[in-house]
Amino acid sequence: MLLEKIPEKEDVQEALTRILPYIHQTPIMTSSNLNELTGARLLFKCENLQKAGAFKSRGACNAIWSLDEEDLDYGVGTHSSGNHAQALARAAAIRKTKAYVVMPRNAPSVKVAAVRSYGAEITFCEPNLSSREETLHHILEETGAIEIHPYNNYTIICGQATCGLEIFQETGTPDFILAPVGGGGLLSGTALAAHYFSPGTRVIGCEPAGADDAYRSFKEGKIQPSFTPRTIADGLLTSLGSRTFPIIREYVHDIVTTNEASIIKAMRLIWERMKIVIEPSAAVPLAAILEEKICIKGKTVVIILSGGNIDLEKIPWVTKNQ
Amino acid sequence: MLLEKIPEKEDVQEALTRILPYIHQTPIMTSSNLNELTGARLLFKCENLQKAGAFKSRGACNAIWSLDEEDLDYGVGTHSSGNHAQALARAAAIRKTKAYVVMPRNAPSVKVAAVRSYGAEITFCEPNLSSREETLHHILEETGAIEIHPYNNYTIICGQATCGLEIFQETGTPDFILAPVGGGGLLSGTALAAHYFSPGTRVIGCEPAGADDAYRSFKEGKIQPSFTPRTIADGLLTSLGSRTFPIIREYVHDIVTTNEASIIKAMRLIWERMKIVIEPSAAVPLAAILEEKICIKGKTVVIILSGGNIDLEKIPWVTKNQ
Repeated sequence: MLLEKIPEKEDVQEALTRILPYIHQTPIMTSSNLNELTGARLLFKCENLQKAGAFKSRGACNAIWSLDEEDLDYGVGTHSSGNHAQALARAAAIRKTKAYVVMPRNAPSVKVAAVRSYGAEITFCEPNLSSREETLHHILEETGAIEIHPYNNYTIICGQATCGLEIFQETGTPDFILAPVGGGGLLSGTALAAHYFSPGTRVIGCEPAGADDAYRSFKEGKIQPSFTPRTIADGLLTSLGSRTFPIIREYVHDIVTTNEASIIKAMRLIWERMKIVIEPSAAVPLAAILEEKICIKGKTVVIILSGGNIDLEKIPWVTKNQ
Repeated sequence: MLLEKIPEKEDVQEALTRILPYIHQTPIMTSSNLNELTGARLLFKCENLQKAGAFKSRGACNAIWSLDEEDLDYGVGTHSSGNHAQALARAAAIRKTKAYVVMPRNAPSVKVAAVRSYGAEITFCEPNLSSREETLHHILEETGAIEIHPYNNYTIICGQATCGLEIFQETGTPDFILAPVGGGGLLSGTALAAHYFSPGTRVIGCEPAGADDAYRSFKEGKIQPSFTPRTIADGLLTSLGSRTFPIIREYVHDIVTTNEASIIKAMRLIWERMKIVIEPSAAVPLAAILEEKICIKGKTVVIILSGGNIDLEKIPWVTKNQ
């Protein structure tokens, strides 16, 4: 059964137990080099090494394994051009149910191929929110599939909160925890986890200035619309939802924004110094640190590296220089 | 004191204890995706995540911490354009002794910068072996520094063998262990480790066809010269040494060669599916598997990912396509 209210402490603990057979308990990595550079003790939670390449597997698995056998008779459906689609398709495949995924006609072919490789049924739509929602609505009506929204869903939020739970189990009470924010699934889950398991930790959301609706919403105290977001961080284009925003408003300490050059610089630093592949969205928290948007000197700072799914033909600094 | 004969079982065990405070016990990663692709159970030992970005830190640390305080009065010296230079410079800096590194005039600026960042004194020479050796000889005579050869040195070989020791401690007796081969330090160390700690494991050296002197030497039974090697695997251009070859001849089961396209393909697969950055040399064993040079269906196969130091401006598949 899917959750119908904000996940409680026990919900998060149960979610971790539920999904553990299907996800990686990802490592926390460090880099003495990046510690020196930033003057802080950085702990990188490597969700880029997560199943299907992103933290989204946590929420998707929590949703799929929260449903009863009979709920799954007609499959599940979602609209997503990114990591949630892959994660849901994978989880559905493992539980042998059908996944219907609505993707915009202009979705990158690597992403379409990845979703298809997990056996999902893809329906293309026009590249705008109303076409996505309409197309999905149609499919849900026709098939009887259950909608699993990428973030505006308490069971998804609860699944994403397991990342924070693992972090606090391993690190105690770090001074800060930083997560990127798009629709707010990861940030709201992380904030809940901090609230329940490490209330002394400050939770900071990090957002590209080119898609700053969460920043504006947080400052205004109510959800602000997103105006034609433009950023290389393609996982953070979505707007906050009615279920993620109230949690963020209550439990997140601050949201900061970063420019595109810093995101690319941070991404490259992590590839170069840590020898791991992250996608641009995952670089946003380190970008905020490089821009000194957060005062972390001498502090212990957990950074959630949210994902590693990137088209390796299009590496920003290589393309730029040629 | 440096070893003067082939390392024994106890030497390898002592080396691991000696270097443990200064290196990472690197993780062994898996990829269900690559298992499916190859039909085997692949275990990747991630020396790309090692200190200074390569297994070379093992040998360098073993050498530096095998020397007595007074041996280090005048520093250490080596000629290397690559990972050994960085590893030795780092180890020397930690033990507060001087490192003299001879590098060819045309060494990539990123590599020069990396060696310099560890505080080594760099002397440039002409880009050929005799100039390297002469320049180093001169420096050793002038300074009294001790030479630490990149691979033709039993203490270095013993240090590299600790990688295999860690692997067998963690995995038991895998069917195969695959390592790239250039000068043979890693391969000879790995073969010794298998001989001492996992004699049931077959040890395979993997070499680019464009730099196949180890392959030819192994088949002929005596060291063959290297003729103008050409390969993207820039860590594997060197030839076997008088100390690595006899060990390889005795304890390695086979050496196989791979073409350049397979190396690039394997490297990209690892970046894409495992979300980690490896250098071309580290991709050679998977390249050999992709070319079906080794029959591994259904087997457990350890692949040593030797390093992750690559100029991120020059990613072969991106450069090629533009």
